[in-house]
Amino acid sequence: MRYLLGIDLGGTNIAAGAVTPEGRLLSKVSLPTLPHRPYRDVIRDMAHALSLAEERAYLSRKDCLGLGVGVPGCVDPTEGTVHFLPNLNWQNIPLGQDLKQLSSLPVFLGNDADCAALGEYVSGAGSAFSSMLMITLGTGVGGGLIVNGNIFSGFHGGGFEPGHLPLVLDGEPCGCGNRGCLEAYASATALIRETERAMLGAPESQLWTLAPTAGQITPKTPFDGAALGDACARGVVERYIHALAAGISGLVNILRPEAVVLGGGVSNQGDALLLPLKKEFLSFCYASAHIRPPLLRVAALGNDAGIIGAGLLARAPRFEGGFCQ
Amino acid sequence: MRYLLGIDLGGTNIAAGAVTPEGRLLSKVSLPTLPHRPYRDVIRDMAHALSLAEERAYLSRKDCLGLGVGVPGCVDPTEGTVHFLPNLNWQNIPLGQDLKQLSSLPVFLGNDADCAALGEYVSGAGSAFSSMLMITLGTGVGGGLIVNGNIFSGFHGGGFEPGHLPLVLDGEPCGCGNRGCLEAYASATALIRETERAMLGAPESQLWTLAPTAGQITPKTPFDGAALGDACARGVVERYIHALAAGISGLVNILRPEAVVLGGGVSNQGDALLLPLKKEFLSFCYASAHIRPPLLRVAALGNDAGIIGAGLLARAPRFEGGFCQ
Repeated sequence: MRYLLGIDLGGTNIAAGAVTPEGRLLSKVSLPTLPHRPYRDVIRDMAHALSLAEERAYLSRKDCLGLGVGVPGCVDPTEGTVHFLPNLNWQNIPLGQDLKQLSSLPVFLGNDADCAALGEYVSGAGSAFSSMLMITLGTGVGGGLIVNGNIFSGFHGGGFEPGHLPLVLDGEPCGCGNRGCLEAYASATALIRETERAMLGAPESQLWTLAPTAGQITPKTPFDGAALGDACARGVVERYIHALAAGISGLVNILRPEAVVLGGGVSNQGDALLLPLKKEFLSFCYASAHIRPPLLRVAALGNDAGIIGAGLLARAPRFEGGFCQ
Repeated sequence: MRYLLGIDLGGTNIAAGAVTPEGRLLSKVSLPTLPHRPYRDVIRDMAHALSLAEERAYLSRKDCLGLGVGVPGCVDPTEGTVHFLPNLNWQNIPLGQDLKQLSSLPVFLGNDADCAALGEYVSGAGSAFSSMLMITLGTGVGGGLIVNGNIFSGFHGGGFEPGHLPLVLDGEPCGCGNRGCLEAYASATALIRETERAMLGAPESQLWTLAPTAGQITPKTPFDGAALGDACARGVVERYIHALAAGISGLVNILRPEAVVLGGGVSNQGDALLLPLKKEFLSFCYASAHIRPPLLRVAALGNDAGIIGAGLLARAPRFEGGFCQ
């Protein structure tokens, strides 16, 4: 009765695993989400993935304390309801109750970015800190803030949405309908867009060798070009890091966590991202001469963070003050 | 033993008062700060202002539970130390201990913007809400967030600095040394700067009648011009409100308070500010179709909020989780 089960429900895959209370992943199973099929087929496969994850960890249901599920949308963790999950076209779904029936386990819901942050906090790059902000630089920009083991999701409901901090008033269009959000400058999508734009103005750039067609550009492309000394690539990387540093400093000037952990595809660039980012970030932080700024780290758990954090939701659910799961 | 004493220490005035635990101001005294004189002279006058405030409220020291002091700088409330107070050129000053000796009362320190927010929360525009963000639009942009009666000042020390949220990457210079901060667009100073700039490009504007010289422009000037139908003034007000709405929505997308209260000089424009601001603010808030956005209000206590909130620091000091005073 001490192990935990976690599901990271994505638009592409249902990833499930068995997790120790210390945040170690014992097994991992992935089934396709097939998001356009009926709800009952999706949760049936969620339950199936759980059974496989247990089996592969040599566990039975009675070894498990509970199930946590991270979803890419708005949830009400106290009611166990998914309010709004655009990728699967779910609205006001009693997912907690339905999974409880299917699994015979207590079920805890959370936002997927919050779960990834909780995973990194417990057994990844944030494990040495009491408060940690995680920012994921993927298709969008998401994130989670963990304080003393609790997920911070704002004080009134509606969650913590760091990707929708303004960064450039009336700037690039953002997926949320507004313009100029952090996400429109710091996501992998934005980095690819800016690489393509810069290439169109630089026919001599080595980026054309690295990615002969637009579809071949990845977040790695401009970093690879910059490592080759290509001026166009360097410009793209510098502007990206400049915007990211400003955005993170904005979050830090409000929240003051002890550490900031970067995840998502762009963070795979490691020191090529982190070293120049640290420098710019320090110059952007308010009163950094008087107040020690947070440490910057790259996430350690990769895609497993979401499953691990989801499992950890079932470890010690607390609903105090502004913190909830 | 139930009344509270509060001091709002500013660069210009030492404002002191006696306050009820419900946040009602019983008396008010103001002495000049004269910030360039020695520290011991300033705190002697702080103690003198306290005695006068007691006298005017017909109280003696034994009627008072404690003293709270709001200062425009960085404080360590647990140690009672002022780390950094640029207006008075104070650094690492044991203000709490020294005032305790002079007043024979328990002393609690806080940031002045946090105190103003606490005052509005307890007995002003925020009294109906459990969580409230206050933004002051004055010489700078400050603010405080109160949740369940506690001041939120971040999770690691260094406070809550909403004026230094990025709004326009590489935009207008800000007093903090960076560029493009919310303060550089939403402060009264910024509004005056933009009014002057717009007038220089519009010699026909009625703003020249309202303020024939640059020194006569106040935050009221562009609002007065807009009310007269002047196109130049309308443009200034519209751009100001647009930037302010984006900045507030950024804070809301992270913190999700129940209400946002606007204070400071610009907020005196009341509905001429609030009505268009509400409209823009809603369009900027993330997922406002799915999550109820916070209510917007204008501060109710004016300059008294700072003294009242300072007094309330001494009411129920709590130091839990990320909340501290």
